Formats: sequence, structure tokens, C-alpha cells
Amino acid sequence: MTRWPEWTLAGGPVQMSAQTLRDQSRPVLYHYDPAFLELYERTCDLSKQVFRTDYDVVLMHGEAILALEAATASLLTPGDKVLNLVSGVFGKWFELFIDKYGGETVEIAVPYNEAIDPDIVRKTLEEHGDIKFLSVVHSETPSATINPVEAIGKIAHEHGVVTLVDTVSGLGGEVLSPEDWGIDIAIAGPQKCLGGPPGLSMLAISPKAWDTMEKKPSPVRGSFLSILDWKDTWIEKKKFPYTPSVSLIYGLESVLRQALEEGIERMAARHALIAQACRRGVEAMGLRLWAASESIAAPCVTGVVLPEGVTDGDLRGRLRDHYGIMISGGYGELEGQLFRLGHMGIAAHPGYLIAQLGLVERTLSDLGHPIELGRGVGAALSALSDWEPA
Amino acid sequence: MTRWPEWTLAGGPVQMSAQTLRDQSRPVLYHYDPAFLELYERTCDLSKQVFRTDYDVVLMHGEAILALEAATASLLTPGDKVLNLVSGVFGKWFELFIDKYGGETVEIAVPYNEAIDPDIVRKTLEEHGDIKFLSVVHSETPSATINPVEAIGKIAHEHGVVTLVDTVSGLGGEVLSPEDWGIDIAIAGPQKCLGGPPGLSMLAISPKAWDTMEKKPSPVRGSFLSILDWKDTWIEKKKFPYTPSVSLIYGLESVLRQALEEGIERMAARHALIAQACRRGVEAMGLRLWAASESIAAPCVTGVVLPEGVTDGDLRGRLRDHYGIMISGGYGELEGQLFRLGHMGIAAHPGYLIAQLGLVERTLSDLGHPIELGRGVGAALSALSDWEPA
Amino acid sequence: MTRWPEWTLAGGPVQMSAQTLRDQSRPVLYHYDPAFLELYERTCDLSKQVFRTDYDVVLMHGEAILALEAATASLLTPGDKVLNLVSGVFGKWFELFIDKYGGETVEIAVPYNEAIDPDIVRKTLEEHGDIKFLSVVHSETPSATINPVEAIGKIAHEHGVVTLVDTVSGLGGEVLSPEDWGIDIAIAGPQKCLGGPPGLSMLAISPKAWDTMEKKPSPVRGSFLSILDWKDTWIEKKKFPYTPSVSLIYGLESVLRQALEEGIERMAARHALIAQACRRGVEAMGLRLWAASESIAAPCVTGVVLPEGVTDGDLRGRLRDHYGIMISGGYGELEGQLFRLGHMGIAAHPGYLIAQLGLVERTLSDLGHPIELGRGVGAALSALSDWEPA
Amino acid sequence: MTRWPEWTLAGGPVQMSAQTLRDQSRPVLYHYDPAFLELYERTCDLSKQVFRTDYDVVLMHGEAILALEAATASLLTPGDKVLNLVSGVFGKWFELFIDKYGGETVEIAVPYNEAIDPDIVRKTLEEHGDIKFLSVVHSETPSATINPVEAIGKIAHEHGVVTLVDTVSGLGGEVLSPEDWGIDIAIAGPQKCLGGPPGLSMLAISPKAWDTMEKKPSPVRGSFLSILDWKDTWIEKKKFPYTPSVSLIYGLESVLRQALEEGIERMAARHALIAQACRRGVEAMGLRLWAASESIAAPCVTGVVLPEGVTDGDLRGRLRDHYGIMISGGYGELEGQLFRLGHMGIAAHPGYLIAQLGLVERTLSDLGHPIELGRGVGAALSALSDWEPA
Repeated sequence: MTRWPEWTLAGGPVQMSAQTLRDQSRPVLYHYDPAFLELYERTCDLSKQVFRTDYDVVLMHGEAILALEAATASLLTPGDKVLNLVSGVFGKWFELFIDKYGGETVEIAVPYNEAIDPDIVRKTLEEHGDIKFLSVVHSETPSATINPVEAIGKIAHEHGVVTLVDTVSGLGGEVLSPEDWGIDIAIAGPQKCLGGPPGLSMLAISPKAWDTMEKKPSPVRGSFLSILDWKDTWIEKKKFPYTPSVSLIYGLESVLRQALEEGIERMAARHALIAQACRRGVEAMGLRLWAASESIAAPCVTGVVLPEGVTDGDLRGRLRDHYGIMISGGYGELEGQLFRLGHMGIAAHPGYLIAQLGLVERTLSDLGHPIELGRGVGAALSALSDWEPA
Repeated sequence: MTRWPEWTLAGGPVQMSAQTLRDQSRPVLYHYDPAFLELYERTCDLSKQVFRTDYDVVLMHGEAILALEAATASLLTPGDKVLNLVSGVFGKWFELFIDKYGGETVEIAVPYNEAIDPDIVRKTLEEHGDIKFLSVVHSETPSATINPVEAIGKIAHEHGVVTLVDTVSGLGGEVLSPEDWGIDIAIAGPQKCLGGPPGLSMLAISPKAWDTMEKKPSPVRGSFLSILDWKDTWIEKKKFPYTPSVSLIYGLESVLRQALEEGIERMAARHALIAQACRRGVEAMGLRLWAASESIAAPCVTGVVLPEGVTDGDLRGRLRDHYGIMISGGYGELEGQLFRLGHMGIAAHPGYLIAQLGLVERTLSDLGHPIELGRGVGAALSALSDWEPA
Repeated sequence: MTRWPEWTLAGGPVQMSAQTLRDQSRPVLYHYDPAFLELYERTCDLSKQVFRTDYDVVLMHGEAILALEAATASLLTPGDKVLNLVSGVFGKWFELFIDKYGGETVEIAVPYNEAIDPDIVRKTLEEHGDIKFLSVVHSETPSATINPVEAIGKIAHEHGVVTLVDTVSGLGGEVLSPEDWGIDIAIAGPQKCLGGPPGLSMLAISPKAWDTMEKKPSPVRGSFLSILDWKDTWIEKKKFPYTPSVSLIYGLESVLRQALEEGIERMAARHALIAQACRRGVEAMGLRLWAASESIAAPCVTGVVLPEGVTDGDLRGRLRDHYGIMISGGYGELEGQLFRLGHMGIAAHPGYLIAQLGLVERTLSDLGHPIELGRGVGAALSALSDWEPA
Repeated sequence: MTRWPEWTLAGGPVQMSAQTLRDQSRPVLYHYDPAFLELYERTCDLSKQVFRTDYDVVLMHGEAILALEAATASLLTPGDKVLNLVSGVFGKWFELFIDKYGGETVEIAVPYNEAIDPDIVRKTLEEHGDIKFLSVVHSETPSATINPVEAIGKIAHEHGVVTLVDTVSGLGGEVLSPEDWGIDIAIAGPQKCLGGPPGLSMLAISPKAWDTMEKKPSPVRGSFLSILDWKDTWIEKKKFPYTPSVSLIYGLESVLRQALEEGIERMAARHALIAQACRRGVEAMGLRLWAASESIAAPCVTGVVLPEGVTDGDLRGRLRDHYGIMISGGYGELEGQLFRLGHMGIAAHPGYLIAQLGLVERTLSDLGHPIELGRGVGAALSALSDWEPA
């Protein structure tokens, strides 16, 4: 059997803490057991606190792609115009759902190492008065960049547009506020900055979004893709439309609790500082950051341009097989162009960062890439002078 | 906080064994880590062995309802005639999916304590030469009954009909064979007889079923509901269409391994004997079994008619809150008519059965129902004389 | 590999709850880590609360036999007279330690199914004015009997005798009070009624006991057998004399917390009621209880005379290998005379009791012993009418 | 509650791997359960394989200090001359046991940063023809040094001296052979290089050692300190002298299995290389290694002289509280003179080493000690060029 890596420092799913693993292994309860109903409700409440919202939060029992498809299917009526913002692979993919559910896409696209400019969003909305929806990826994990969702959401809100935000790897990395940011549906997952298990998605849903779903000519109900089913059952009657993923709910409840114990601001600051130190380390190694500018680099993961003469397979393969560290490569169209250093959840910590940078140096050197061992680590250590523990 | 029950002996999800809980808490790997790819492939292989099939097995990352909807969406072309066999709540519900995806339902229904007669299936298929699909629930958990799927499947096969079987709580309780039984899509879940976690579904898919999905005018692709996506990605390229539920795969791999160590025949025999002993116990208590006849009673759960003067809430509430045992009640239309004693997975064992029966006696007595304490247990113990341990 | 039993219902060690197992698997800390020092101190505090004492509590890092030997070695000066009360195997064995450490034993012995009469203790102490120590086993696990330690301790106290009580399987089964009961050293363990791991012992130590240890001509120090070492290090300086068993401390801390959440009175009442129901079940099976009278039967375990024609090996072997339940047999001199039904810790619960009794019936019947299946269970169920959940 | 450190990289106990934690949390079995007897026997067999010996191996159920005292008590007859080799705190402490059990100590001592010279051992043995025992610490954890036990043991063997070796932190860090090295009793523990739990000790015992114990005027029996008790019970009759620490045996069995899967040579080479890289890193930081020479530096832990102006409390306190890494300080007489970087068990891995060195740099810099960040890490990375994964 293939040896397991010592550490998984990928772009998600991420390593869970020892406490999360223990909490997730609580005995499986029958889903209508009063203790499970109580825990499920608490998990929804904790989700709202982590989202910093008074909107309803719905948990869907599939990875975030389920929630993204469900939201598209539930909101769109064929012919609806959707302004889709594309700054990476995930943003571009979203157009497939718009197509599938009959929407008409208006696209604003930038190169995949840049972020969307809110002014262009404003201009586009002004030009296209009939745009009903806006979709944007908050944290483009494959590009290791973030979009200015606060500004974008506010503009969209002013224009009466229903805004759908994929913040799967954004939540916990930045302090979000659906209400203040003008977001109608925010979709997150436990398996990124929160450090939980993959297999669930969390949706914060504004009254306007509910209204849109309900007023659609044929509302999406009676389907695994239905969000309204959860309103009709859990929210209104404390019933489930189907058997929930009990163990994963345990894992989610655990990481939400841990996040609130740490405090969302501190959690975001932790991710921000580690990401910054990572970038200083990468630059000092003589490598090029993928993100076009400092301000759009993601807090959860750092993209690095593959240096000439080094293949993704060689770099990541040796790092994993030889030094026991699993990181992510480029994804989709970006495969072979960059590699990504993960620092989300428990990995957003000086120890994992320093080890990761040091062993990337070691690996590059093993592969014949000229590098001064310790230089990148030194720069990262220097940037950690402001580190404050949780 | 509400106290947790000592034991969950419900109609599923069920208690996981200590080994399963430990295996499920292995560290989360990145889904493209070679060790995870290897484990995922092994899980698919083990699934095939447990299904006793050479057909492809696809794992979908949502509870069985996802697989049922996905199969319907993927197979049906609007206007297709589907023979839907209804012997319980789940069978009846399936019609909603047929409707949703444009099928035309031909129904054979029996009272919810009876099973489908294969002869009527044959006759109906002969009458309706244009029936393209047949759907049947193998083990109707809410009714605690089973349908003669072997006979039905063979008949359907003779008539060239594509057969879809919901064997979520059937697999492991009976020895199945998709090929021999003429099943084109068999859908199972880890959280019933296998004793695993809820949140996944396993689909055994015949070449004919693949062919039907691919030849549909607009094949279902690019969706959480797509089965073909898994063929295009995992089966053909060892890629994932989205992030799999890593922890749940660990749980599934563990219970499949345990099932094969025990042997599927022995596992089925174990469930059968415990179910039989349960029925003898129930009868000796003076209660009435829900299933109309011995031969159609399910191996995984036993339905018992609620005795007069005893409400479901009183019985199950006291059993749980006072004696720490959580069982299931009637579900859907059957709510308030029966209660269900669970004996699947690790609970298909003399210890759990005897404790459960004894404490049902104690509870009924507490509630003023006349009962001779120990009588039901005695009859069950007597029926356990053929018990052979795994 | 030998198959593991489904349940361990022995005379200790016992099954740990799922929560205890999880808590015990917390990551191992360095013993001088501030978090471990804090947890260790909390564990000592919780121990005092469970012992209901203001005396110092010392944790020794070996099973109770270590504490018993350590206490003997630490207290006795060669020539000291010790009144040793013998109502079972463990009481008799204690004489070996008295001998080893130079004491002179005065013995009061009763048959191993009876308990010590406090009046005889009083008379003996009056006759032998030079007795300095009294040793007694509170709960004689091998005999499944208890001694009236409250009365005995008070008498000893009046006579100025230093009293050593082995309450390894007593603590949690009865509500103890070292101060009120005149006990100078009480020794308990986590692995019995508390439902924790074997490998530690807890000693509540009176000022008089400390004084005796310190005033001994050559106090026992600098040894694994030293109790004073723990006073000199942990109690006075928060240092350890050697590396503590970190994982076991986690387990102990967990079960102490759980015990206090339940409440010691409720915990004792729970053990008492289950033991009583067990005895009613045993009698109704036509078997003979080992304990000579109801009032001296132990709350933690029930001794049953092996019926004629049934060997211990056959009974316990079949119960374990065929029905998955491990119970204890007779121990030491009592081997082959009795078997013991365990009901301590999480097993002091109706479910485990009923299952255990039922499967003992089934096993006896398998072995050809005439028995009316269900009769014993019925009597036990009847005796459970006063059961109150925690 | 005090926050737990992210990593424990101390001089032992050490972090356990995720697998070890899972294996250690297997359900507690009754110690006479056939499955436990089998597992216990397997654990003894695995211990022999890890010790590379055909001698008997006895497991004692207390930390290594128990085994050291037990061996002294069991071997020595008052008046016996013991050659005690002292190169550190633990070696010196051993004299207390020699005194306690009536031996007469002949000491060879060196400064605590040096190792014993075998030639002086030879000369001393030649001078003192009546020396019966030799005691030596293989790996002096507090000094982070090793003694040349192979050479010493062979010399002792030639002189007919019974040799007792404390290899608690040596086993797994070097490849040992009691037979070839002339060792009569080798004492190890799970909680160091093996990466297991504290609370047990393993003793490899030569026939000559058994013989010495048995021929002593009053052999040590009937005591927690007795080794012969284990021969009389477990080895000869598969009985236990008292209840074993079941959970810890699970932990030990797990780490022994993992060690043999890796291979003892590879395990030792892994510790050696990481230790070497650690030393290169420390030197490059401008710090001074505690060990007087490269050849006597321990594979399990690296001692570093505290730089002027930096207190142990400041350095280790900040490293732990600020950066989440717990390391060990000086111990006993060495307190305040050195700090120790741990690299045993799973921590003997490039990732933990690099992180540890980097954050020591960061901490020293925080404390105002002049340091070039990244320099030590760079040197360590350079020394890792020969790293081979397990």
C-alpha cells in the first residue's frame, strides 16, 4: 500500500485537528434522535455566527458544487441574464451551470492571476439594466486569489441584482458579512479555512433569495438539488428531506465551535499573516508569485509560478514521496503553470509554513534548481514578527 | 444538553462498530493524493465484491436519495413508461421522481404490509409491451418488508425492461446478484446492514444501463445528479468530478472490508436469524407483526403494530429517555401505526436483540399495557438455538 | 486472530464508554507542559470530589496492587500488629504484603461468601490493645461481596488504629467518605465502577497516614513504591517523581468528570439497582447466588454458584465464543466454584443486564442445563421498575 | 484552560502518530479474554524482534524507572560491587538504587557532555576483580549523548560481569543486540524513539540475569518490583501477576508493529540523519552543541547550550506559548544550562525538524538574541540531502 503523507498542506480538503477527528468520531445517532436534532440546530446556529449573519443558513449534504448547482437551478428562470465574474477556473466553470439552467451569461473576465475590478462591474450593470443575477467566486482557490466581494456585492445590491457568492475557501480567511456586503446567497464549505471534513456545504440565504426561489414559475422542489426543500422541512418543521450525513455534521459542529472559540477576526488575521509570510518566503527563494499583486493574493493558499525546468510532477511528487508533504498543483487550465502552498485551517500556523517552505527549497535543490537553502525560510520567519497566537 | 441514548437500534442510520469509528477517523487526505486514489479504487473493488457483481460500481457522494434521483434523471426520456412497484412508502415516493423526469407511471400497488407478486409483474409487462423501465424497492424499511426482487428482476429481464432496484437496506441482509437477478441499477447505502456512515450511495450499473444513459437524447452530464460524470471521470480517467467525502469513504471502505471478512452469506444468515428470533419474541409478547407473512418480513428491521392504547410517542419516548434505546417509529403515511425494532449491522446480534426486546416489554408494562415480562425474550432466546457466530 | 467479544462484562477491567475512549486518545503532552500540569491538577481535584474527601489524593502510576503494596511498605515498621480482615481472596492475599514488610498479622476471617462482622472487629481490637493497623477490602470483587466498611472504619478510628481500605471496585458503587468512615488510606482504581482504564490507582490519604509514613524509622522514599515521593514532588512542588502515564490520566480525568456529571449518589444508586435486578434474575433462573445474604452482595458484580454439571470453561467459553459476551469466572481459590456477572461502569445499565442474563440462560440451555428461557430476564425486568436514568 | 501546544517535540514522552492513537483506543478487553492473551503474546514477540533478541522479554506495567528499580532490587545482594558508569543525570541517579538495595558503587564518571571510555571500563574491571554488575545508560536523554554500549557490554561480558543497560531512549535510535553486545538486562520504553505511550517498560533478560535473580539469597517475588513474578506467571503459565494496563499494551503493540514495518535499521538511520541535520542547523545558528563531540551526540534529542542572556524560561516559554512548540529544557543538575530539541518517533522527520529549528531562530530573535533568520534552517536542509523516506 502507498505510504500516507506526513502532512496534507493542499488547497483543500485539509488536515483536521486531533480534536476535530475525535469529535467527528462520536457514535452515529438516528437523525430523529432528540440529541441529534439539538446538535443539528446548534450546528445551524453556529454556522450563522461564523457567517456573521441573521439570514437563514441551510446545510446541504454534498460538497459545495451541489450548493452551487442547487442555487443556480433554484434561482434562474430560462432567459435570465446573469453577470458572471471570471478570474479563475471556478468562476469560468460556473457559466456551465448558468447555461444548463437556461440563463444568459454576461461575462466580465480577467486573466487568472488578476481580480475583478468593481468599477467595471458597476459599469456593466449600468449598461445592462436587465441583469438579474451576479455570480462571483470570493476566493479562487485554483488561482490563489481573492476578489473584492464587499465592493462588488454592494454595487450589485444597489442595482437590485441577486448576488451569489462562492466563498468556499473564503469563509474563515476573511471576515464576511452577507448583509453588509449585499450577498444574497453565500456558499461555504467546512473543508477549507475551517479545517473540517469535505462533504457538506453551508448556504446563507437572504429573504430576497428565498423570495426569488419561491416566485420562480416552477420552484425547484422534491429534488436533491432543492434548497426550498430544506426550508419546507428543516427550517419550518425540523424534519429532514432525507438522511443527513451524521458524522460530517459532527465534524462541522466541531470546527464551527473551534472557530468561534478562536474568534473569526483572529482566525482571519491568522490566515492573512501566514499567507503574507508565505509570499515573502516564496519571493526570497527567487520564485514568482502567481497573483498579479499583493492585495489580491488569497489568505488560504499561495500560488507560485513553476520555475523553468521544473515540472509539476517532479516538484510535487518528490515533495510528497520523499519529504511526506502533499501540496496542490495547478488545476484545470492552470495545470502545469503553478503549484500551490496550502495554509488553511490548522496549517495556517508558523510550524507548517516554515516546514513547507523549507522542504520546497530542499526539493527544488534536489531537482537541480539553483536555490540558496534557508533563504526563503528566513524571509518568512522575518515576516512572522507580528505573529500572535490564538 | 440532551443525553445521548446508550444504543441506537433504529431503522438506519445505525451504530457503527468501534473499528469502523476508528477507521473513519483516519486523517483526511487530499483527494488526489496517491494513497487516497488507491483507497478509493479499493473501495470500489470491495463494493463490487459485496454486490457480487462484475458491473461497474459508482459511488455517489450523497445519501441514497441522490442516487435514486440521479438514476431516474439519467435513464428516463420524457414519455417513457415505468412500471413502479409499490409496497410501501419508499416505493410510492419513487413515483415523484418518475413524474419529475417526465416518465409515465404504471403502478402495481399492494397494501403496505404485503409484497409484490411476481406473477402480476409478468402479466403487467405482457399487457404493456411498451414499458421500458421497472422500479422496485428490495427492502421497504418503513414497512419492514422485502419484495421478491430475484423473481421480479428475472421477469423484467426477459421482457427487455431496464430494472432499477433500491436495495439500500437490502444489501448485506440478503445475498444479491445484479447479473443473475436481472438488475440494471442496484442502489445501496453504507448506513444499513453494512453498519457504515450515512452520506454515500453505491450504484451497480449494467452495460445496458450505461447504454441507456448514453443514448438518451440529452444525456445527464455536468451535474451533481449525473452518473455519467463518474464514468467520464473516475472510471475512465481516475479523476473526480468534485471533491469526494473523504472521511465517509474511509468509513465505507472499513465496513466493506469487515463484511467480506465475515462473508456475505454469513452476514445475510446472521440478519435472517436475528430477524426471525425478533419476530418470535414479538409474537410471544402478544403483539402483532406488521408484515402480512413470515416470508416477506425484512431481515434488517421488524415492524410491529402499535398495540391499542399505546402511542408511538409514549413507547419510543420512554424506551429512549428512560432505558437509553432509540428505535424507529412508523414513517410517512405509516406514522403512528407501527414501531420498528432495528437489527442491522452490529445490532444484528443476540445481545442487542435480547436487550431491545426485554426493554420493550419493560416499557410497555410501564405504560400500563398488560404484558408478562420475559415471555417475548424467552421466545426469542428459544429461536436463537441455531445462532452461529461470525 | 481470535475474534474480539462484542461486549466485555467482566469483573474489571470493564468497557469504556465511547466518550472515554475519545478523551483518552487526546494527543500525548510532555508531562511538564503547562496544559498537562493543569490537567493533572484537575484530575487530582476531581478525584477528591469523587472520593468526597478533603484529604490529599495521590495518583500512583500502576494498577491498585502497586498502591496496596506501597501503602503497606510505607506504613509498617517490622513488628507492627495489623488486623487483617479476610472475607475473600483479595483480603487473604493482603497478608502476603504484611508478611513481606515485617508486620504481624491478626486475622479475622469468614467464609468467602460472607462479610466481616463489625462487632468482632471491636472485640478483637479491645483484646489486642497493640494493634496499630487495620486492613480491609471494601468490595471483594472475586467474592462479589462487600464489607461494612463504614462501621468497621468508625470502630478502628475509635481505637486509634490506622485503617487501610481497598475500595478498588467499591468507589462509585457506594458513596464513600474517608473522613466520616474513619479511613486513613482508601485505594481505588479507574477500571471498575468508574468505567476507566486499568493502570492507575488513586489514594486518599489522611493526615494521620502521612504522619505515620513520615515518622517511620526509615521512611520509604526514592522508590516506585513510595507514596511520600509524591508528597515531596507533586503535592509540594508540582513536580513528578517520574514520567506519568499521560494517556491513562486522560482516561481517568474523563471518567471522573462523567461521574461528577452524573452525581456520585445517582451513580451508586444505579449500580445498586442493577445489581439487585441481576440477583432477582439469577434466582429466577433457579441458580444460587454466591453471597450468603442480600445485604452483603456487591453493587459492581454478582457471583453465581456454578450449577452442577456445568463447568466454568463450558459456560464462559460458550457465552464468549458463541454469543460474544466475556464475563469473569471464579478467581484464585474460588476458581471453578462460581461465575460472575459484571455490571459496573457503563454496564450498570438495563440493556447490558438484560442481554447478559438472557444469553446466560441461552448458554445454560445449550449446555443441557434445564432452564426456562426468559424466566430470569422476566424477574430482572420486574425488578427494574424503579429504574431512573442518569 | 491553557491552550495545548500544536506540537510536542520534547525529550519524551513524544507525540504519537494518528495510527497509534487510533490503535490505542481499541475497546478495553478483560485481561484474560483470549483475544487479549493473544495480543499480549504478540506484543512480547514483537518486542523481541525490535530488541533483536532471543532472550525473554518482560513487559512491566510502569514507566522505565520501575524496571530500573526492579532490576536493581532483583539482581543485587547487599555487598555486591556495581560498576556504575556516569555520563549524565540518569547515570548518577542510578547510584541511589544501588545504595538502596545494598550494593557498593564503583563509579566511573565523566563530565555530563562526554561519554564513557570503554578502555577505562576495562581497566577498572581489571583492577576490581570482584565487580559483579555493571550499569550504564545507553542514551542519556538529559545530556543528549550516547555511550558506546556495544564496546562496554563486550568488555563487561568478557569479565563475567552482569550488565544492566538503560536504553529507554536508545532503542529504535540505534540498532541494538543484547546477545552480541553482552547485555544481560536491557530496559526500554515505548515513549521515546518508538513513538508510543509512557507507562510501560520492556526488559530483555539474559539467562544469566534470570539465574542471578533466582539464586539471590531471598529472590524478589510477590511484589510490584518483582521481575521473577512475570517469569512465574506470564512466561510459564500465561497468567498475569496483576491487571495489565490494557490500553497502553494496545499502544505498544501498535508502535512495535509500525517499527518493524519500517525496519529497525531504517528507523535508526532516520533518527541518525535527522539528528545530524539538527546539529548542523544549531551550529549554523551560532549556538553551541552540548555534546563534546559529534560521535557521542544522541540520535533522539539534541542538546544545545543556552546562549548568554537567554533564559530557559524565556526561550521555551515563548516557543511554546507563542509558536505552539513544546521542547524540553535541562533536567536535574543541568537545568538552565541547555535546552533540547526533540526528534524521536514521528518527530524524526524533516518537516518537524525544519519547523522546530526555524521557530527557535524566530524565538531567539524575538528575545533580542542576534541571529540571522534562516541560516540554521538552511544548514539543516543542506544536511538533509541524504534523506531517504521510510
